[in-house]
Amino acid sequence: MAETIFSKMLRGEIPCHKLYEDEHVLAFLDIHPVAPGHTVVIPKEPAETLDRLSDDAAAALGRVLPRLCRAIQKATGAQAYNLLQNNGALANQSVDHVHFHIIPKPSSTQGLGVTWPAGKLDPELGRQLAARVRELAGN
Amino acid sequence: MAETIFSKMLRGEIPCHKLYEDEHVLAFLDIHPVAPGHTVVIPKEPAETLDRLSDDAAAALGRVLPRLCRAIQKATGAQAYNLLQNNGALANQSVDHVHFHIIPKPSSTQGLGVTWPAGKLDPELGRQLAARVRELAGN
Repeated sequence: MAETIFSKMLRGEIPCHKLYEDEHVLAFLDIHPVAPGHTVVIPKEPAETLDRLSDDAAAALGRVLPRLCRAIQKATGAQAYNLLQNNGALANQSVDHVHFHIIPKPSSTQGLGVTWPAGKLDPELGRQLAARVRELAGN
Repeated sequence: MAETIFSKMLRGEIPCHKLYEDEHVLAFLDIHPVAPGHTVVIPKEPAETLDRLSDDAAAALGRVLPRLCRAIQKATGAQAYNLLQNNGALANQSVDHVHFHIIPKPSSTQGLGVTWPAGKLDPELGRQLAARVRELAGN
């Protein structure tokens, strides 16, 4: 995996506003926040995208999310928030090291905005796709 | 916690296109997909928002994400994808049971679109906020 700004933060070569750290996870303030308290949570294990992360590293990251969300809610006063995690340049990934954004939503005009071009699932296509994913997921 | 459509799916009272299930987690196709393969992943533990979920349930959910992402990539052929998790009506949460969306991004005009009104973090405000979050996160 290529060197990223997050590898340098993990080695302490670039400073960050650290919020949380344990054996597996680092969380810090985004320096280009979409809202006050905008946080980035990364695994220490190097992986470009979530599909390449180990199960254990993903579990360790998942485990700290509720605690971080509660602390960010209390510190910012914003009760609503979004988590966003982007994989691939096409999906707006900007740093090639897995990262989850926690973005407070203090009001309708602040924080993350989404466009949601929802369609309707065709039942037969859904049945076929679900069978294929179940097989691939080994479940 | 109030009854939701997801509680009924977990009890098998409402059908779904199931993709994965274990002791702690259920994943199924969103019936109003933003892109083909749009998936919803939920903990079996009832919690309205991520901040109210137990650490163990959050870890169990995190653990299955890489495997599900790989299966959805293979089944849809879309390499790029976004994860989105909304908390609170203001942040577009539509069902009051924690859920992660996995949304394939097959092209720039399909899948999730985001608006990203990024600012710049004031270093002194960042220092103060980080100290407060660290204290609240017990880290």
